[in-house]
Amino acid sequence: MEPEALGYGPRGLQSGTRDETVIERIFQQIRAEGETARVDIARNLGISAATVTTITADLMARGLIEETAARTTGTVRGRPRVALRLRSQAHVVAGLKLGDRMTTLVLIDFQGRQLAETAVPQIAHFTDTGSIVRLIEKTLDLGLAQAGLTREDISAIGVGVPGFVDARAGLIHWSPLLNDRMVPLRALLEDTLNCPVAIDNDANLLALAELWFGVGRAIRDFIVVTIEQGVGMGIVIGNRLYQGTRGCGVEFGHMKVQPEGALCRCGQRGCLEAYVADYALLREAEMALPHMTTQPQDRLDELFAEAKAGNLAARSIFRRAGRLFGIGLANIVNIFDPELVILSGEQLRYDYLYSQEVREMMEANSLVLGHPPVELRLHKWEDQLWAKGAAAFAMDRLTHRLLVGEQEYA
Amino acid sequence: MEPEALGYGPRGLQSGTRDETVIERIFQQIRAEGETARVDIARNLGISAATVTTITADLMARGLIEETAARTTGTVRGRPRVALRLRSQAHVVAGLKLGDRMTTLVLIDFQGRQLAETAVPQIAHFTDTGSIVRLIEKTLDLGLAQAGLTREDISAIGVGVPGFVDARAGLIHWSPLLNDRMVPLRALLEDTLNCPVAIDNDANLLALAELWFGVGRAIRDFIVVTIEQGVGMGIVIGNRLYQGTRGCGVEFGHMKVQPEGALCRCGQRGCLEAYVADYALLREAEMALPHMTTQPQDRLDELFAEAKAGNLAARSIFRRAGRLFGIGLANIVNIFDPELVILSGEQLRYDYLYSQEVREMMEANSLVLGHPPVELRLHKWEDQLWAKGAAAFAMDRLTHRLLVGEQEYA
Repeated sequence: MEPEALGYGPRGLQSGTRDETVIERIFQQIRAEGETARVDIARNLGISAATVTTITADLMARGLIEETAARTTGTVRGRPRVALRLRSQAHVVAGLKLGDRMTTLVLIDFQGRQLAETAVPQIAHFTDTGSIVRLIEKTLDLGLAQAGLTREDISAIGVGVPGFVDARAGLIHWSPLLNDRMVPLRALLEDTLNCPVAIDNDANLLALAELWFGVGRAIRDFIVVTIEQGVGMGIVIGNRLYQGTRGCGVEFGHMKVQPEGALCRCGQRGCLEAYVADYALLREAEMALPHMTTQPQDRLDELFAEAKAGNLAARSIFRRAGRLFGIGLANIVNIFDPELVILSGEQLRYDYLYSQEVREMMEANSLVLGHPPVELRLHKWEDQLWAKGAAAFAMDRLTHRLLVGEQEYA
Repeated sequence: MEPEALGYGPRGLQSGTRDETVIERIFQQIRAEGETARVDIARNLGISAATVTTITADLMARGLIEETAARTTGTVRGRPRVALRLRSQAHVVAGLKLGDRMTTLVLIDFQGRQLAETAVPQIAHFTDTGSIVRLIEKTLDLGLAQAGLTREDISAIGVGVPGFVDARAGLIHWSPLLNDRMVPLRALLEDTLNCPVAIDNDANLLALAELWFGVGRAIRDFIVVTIEQGVGMGIVIGNRLYQGTRGCGVEFGHMKVQPEGALCRCGQRGCLEAYVADYALLREAEMALPHMTTQPQDRLDELFAEAKAGNLAARSIFRRAGRLFGIGLANIVNIFDPELVILSGEQLRYDYLYSQEVREMMEANSLVLGHPPVELRLHKWEDQLWAKGAAAFAMDRLTHRLLVGEQEYA
């Protein structure tokens, strides 16, 4: 995270899909560079200077970009080159991450700068949909007050939700936060907040945050694995978030690591999640701690403390989780051969999931072929980054609407 | 496979990587369309008509493309529109697939038309490197004679090899065909044949064949799974072959489907291949057929006939392979959410690998979420298609050299 970020958003997108228009490619180039001259846009995108001039004039007339004296690099003399940049006050978007202990929000301006950040603690676990909508409203209003803004100042809202989310349909198939299924959260929020909303699985949005603001500024192919109540994954290939054909994205938590193995809350058996997630650890906890006294939300901490103190049953619970997690990671590494795997999420406060043993298990089950093992990096639990990914998603959809108009969700 | 293919090569590559030059994008557009007018190129790529005119004039001067009267579509009147197409006689490339029973070759011209096809039967299994090189020479010369060409007429050669192949380094880490490891096959062949050579894993090249000539003409994201001596996989995402960060591509056969399970020839345990590959089936065959009489290369057929005839042990061998294959496929489907999975390879003559039970196992272990299950399509064993993928790979590298010059392998 650069504090004074010049440029954000995915790089290399002049090479987008065939659906990307010239105006989008020019806009994305300016956003990614932070500040860039017309001549550099033309050269980098391989389009004529005349086209760049016409399109940037249009973007300026619409108040989306502005001219600025370019930062001088090197010893260029003479009159300062004029560069283009996004107009910070053009639009503000909000990004929210819904968690079971906390709802986090960030507001960013059109240049990607953070205007406010707020977090509302709560215990949300199989809650009703109405309460979640009210929680989002409350968090949003707190953030707006912090920034001295009102709801009318917001152009788009992005929300990251754990569970199975169909981003294209704006639909939550299932989430540990909700006691309803098939919740059309996007439509519900758009009705309530009177503003365009985009929702997606939270692990996808964390990968998007890394792509727009984090390691994705330097790395083309990487994977983000999150462990919280469940196991999530986001994949960035060629500077793009990979979302799968049907828009439900990639699923790592339900990889079968043990045929006919432990029962998963998805109803299948042997899923990675059925060994690694909170509930998987807790359902064996009675064996280790028959007289647990703590509140449900503190039991994992108690179990972990017991394991650290030498309780063999407690230790075995974490040990199996760590070993199978290592095997699951090895499978992912064999399939994707990524440059980097980022581990994140609340459960990483328990070190068994990034212990030496997990790393060894991963490496022992990966095909190495003379290359150094893949880099495994830990990004500590930081809800604000997830929220920033949700804001990036909202900004992406907003930009598409501004430049191309209302279209089928792509 | 269109018999009289107009256009070949991946589509949508005007949106290539940021390294792709304008000349490459224009060339690829012409190749993908078969025939296309300058005005359509400019419109589709979002570049100026002047640039298209300059670059296509250069391509014509170099003999790579030519003008042709465009096929009339609709009721356009007046003078016929002039279209551009690749010049068929500009270059010829060869593609070979090395198998354990057969070496297959195709020759294609610059327009992607097949000029010759030939196959040389042999038993190659842990052979020495010199014999493999001579086998390639022999097959190449047979194909050239068929087409009335000589070695001097060939501009590039692509070779698909089973095993762990580092395409970037032109190195075979390990292959069931070779008794050597770390074989620099690309360099050896280039010295022998005096022609640029590209090598890759054969499953990758089958995916490339589907991308350039087959289903990839219509589908953006798909997966090819091959079962022969081992289990291979090629992944096409966004009209591109995904090769991983380190160039060794994706590995499906060594996905762990059973922790601490059966020993794999890679030295690890519980790999899918250790249950599904030829050797995995045969090492249990003595339990079912203690008095096998057939030659080693026919034993799998014998085992399969026994299973069909009701031998319970033989049936159990195939049944377990099929069930674990279904779980492996489900893992891949959960991760990639592809539009289509294509099964191919010699071993599919044994129907247990695409039986109803495998499909059910795959579907039972996939997250469905209201979508129809992924399409599973069988492309029967056809070595010529693999060879065509190798030719596509050679053509891709050749084109890059012609348009951009000798550069680091990208």
